[in-house]
Amino acid sequence: MGRITSRRRVERVAPDGTRLSRVDTLAVEAPLEVRLGGDVLNVTMRTPGNDVDLVAGWLVAEGLVRDRSDLVSASYCAGLDDEGRQTYNVMEVALVDAAARRADRPGRSTWTNSACGVCGASSLDAVRVASPYDVAADDVTVDAEVLTSLPDRHRECQKVFEQTGGLHAAGLFDAAGELLCAREDVGRHNAVDKIVGWALRQGRLPLRGHVLQVSGRASFELVQKAVVAGIPIMSAVSAPSSLAVELAEDSGLTLAGFVRGSSFNLYSHAGRVRSPAGR
Amino acid sequence: MGRITSRRRVERVAPDGTRLSRVDTLAVEAPLEVRLGGDVLNVTMRTPGNDVDLVAGWLVAEGLVRDRSDLVSASYCAGLDDEGRQTYNVMEVALVDAAARRADRPGRSTWTNSACGVCGASSLDAVRVASPYDVAADDVTVDAEVLTSLPDRHRECQKVFEQTGGLHAAGLFDAAGELLCAREDVGRHNAVDKIVGWALRQGRLPLRGHVLQVSGRASFELVQKAVVAGIPIMSAVSAPSSLAVELAEDSGLTLAGFVRGSSFNLYSHAGRVRSPAGR
Repeated sequence: MGRITSRRRVERVAPDGTRLSRVDTLAVEAPLEVRLGGDVLNVTMRTPGNDVDLVAGWLVAEGLVRDRSDLVSASYCAGLDDEGRQTYNVMEVALVDAAARRADRPGRSTWTNSACGVCGASSLDAVRVASPYDVAADDVTVDAEVLTSLPDRHRECQKVFEQTGGLHAAGLFDAAGELLCAREDVGRHNAVDKIVGWALRQGRLPLRGHVLQVSGRASFELVQKAVVAGIPIMSAVSAPSSLAVELAEDSGLTLAGFVRGSSFNLYSHAGRVRSPAGR
Repeated sequence: MGRITSRRRVERVAPDGTRLSRVDTLAVEAPLEVRLGGDVLNVTMRTPGNDVDLVAGWLVAEGLVRDRSDLVSASYCAGLDDEGRQTYNVMEVALVDAAARRADRPGRSTWTNSACGVCGASSLDAVRVASPYDVAADDVTVDAEVLTSLPDRHRECQKVFEQTGGLHAAGLFDAAGELLCAREDVGRHNAVDKIVGWALRQGRLPLRGHVLQVSGRASFELVQKAVVAGIPIMSAVSAPSSLAVELAEDSGLTLAGFVRGSSFNLYSHAGRVRSPAGR
C-alpha cells in the first residue's frame, strides 16, 4: 500500500522575513490506473489507501457495477518502478460478463468522455448517469440537530487533514447521526467513491435512509454519485452549484448546504429535515 | 453566453428551527463539450464565461496548442435546447494541421485517459505533459511582501465568490504584484485554464516572470498547467500535495503554500523569493 502522507523539508518564511527550515507533512497524491482485461478504463489522481473501495465506488458511479457480485476481483498489478519497488498505482479489475459489456458500450457513461449526441441536445442528460434506485421514494427523515452535528462528528475522523490541511473528506451517517464510514482524499469525488465502494463491498447498496456529509462544496458530480448509490440526503459544509441543486431537485435528493454552526440552507426536498419550530 | 450565477429559492433553517424561505444566488455549473472536426475532445463541468479562453487554455495544458496561431477558431455550435434556446454548451475548435495531428495521436496527453504503457512504469511520467518551456531557467525574483499581498489583491476581484461562496479563483500577477488577469470557476483547474487561454490569445506565452495565485490547494494538475504555460512561481492559499511539490521541484517552479497573513511556506526553488532578513 502506498503512503497517505509524506514528509518533506520546507522553508517557513515568517512575517519579519526570517526563514526556518523545518519538516512538514504533505498529503500524498498519486495516479491510480484502473484496467479491465488489460485495457485502461480510467486514471485518477488520488491519495493512496482504500484503493479497492475507490475503484469499486467509481465503477458504481459510472453505472458499470450495481451489486458486489458484479465485481469479481480487484488487485494491484505486480509492477515495479525504476528502483524495483511495487508502485501500487495500477489496479486490474475483473467484472462479471454483463458488467464488462456495459464498459464496452460506446458513449459509456464517463462524463469526461461523454458526447452530447446531437449538437444542442440537453447537456444535463448527456452527463447524467441513470440511477438504478429511486431516491425520491425514500421516506427517511432527519432532525435538524442531527444535520448540524455532522460536521463536528466528521471532523474528529479527519486525521490526515489535521496533519496536512490538504484533504477533502466524506462521511456516511445514518439518520440518527451515527458515523458508518469516513474517507479522505486529495480529490473530493474520490472520498465519495471510497465510501460508495466500501458500501458496495459490504453489500449495503442502495444506501437508503443514509446521509452523506462532504467537507467542501456540492458539485453536480457529487450529487450524482450520491443518487447512483441510493443516498437520499447530502449535507455540504459549503455552497452547492446550480447544477448540483437542479439534479438534487430532479432526483428526489435532499440537499443541505452551508451547514455551519447550528444553521444551514435546504436547496431541495426540504421535507425530509425535521426542526422543532418552523413549518 | 450562459449565466455565471443563478437565483433560486432556498429554505434557511435557523438555530431555533425556524425556517425562512429566501432567494439565494448560486454559482452556475454547466457542461462544456469541446469538439474538433465534429469529434468530441473533452467534456468539462465549468462556470460559463470566458469559454474560448477556457478551451484555449485546456488545449495548451494538453500540449495540443503552443501558439495562438495554432488555434484557428473556437465558436459555439448553433444548437438549441428543448425550449429553442441556444445552449452555449458546445464549442467547435479548428486547429492548424500540426496541432490537429497532435490531437489524433493515440495515448494523447489527457491524463484522465492516459495509460502507463507498461505495468509499473513510473506513474509520474505517465501523467506528465512535456512543457515546451524551461521554467527552471527563469531568473525572476519576487519580494516576500509581494507574495503575501496577493491573496488580498486577488480577493478584491472575486466578485462571484462573494455572492455565492461557490467558486475557485486564479489570478495572474507580474513580479511587482500587479494583477493582469483574474478568473473564477466551479473547477479550480478551469480557473487556471481560463488564465492560460487568455494569455495564449494575447500572445503572452510563455508567461516568464509571472506569478500564478490560486485560491485553494495546489495539486499536481495545477502545477503542471503552470509549467506548461511557462509560469515560474505559483502561490496557493492552502496546502500542496506531495506530487505537486515533486513536480514543482523537478520542473524548476517555485511553489509557495499556506500563503496567509504575512507568513508562508516555500516547498521548492525558494531562491526566487526575496525577504528582508534571512538569506
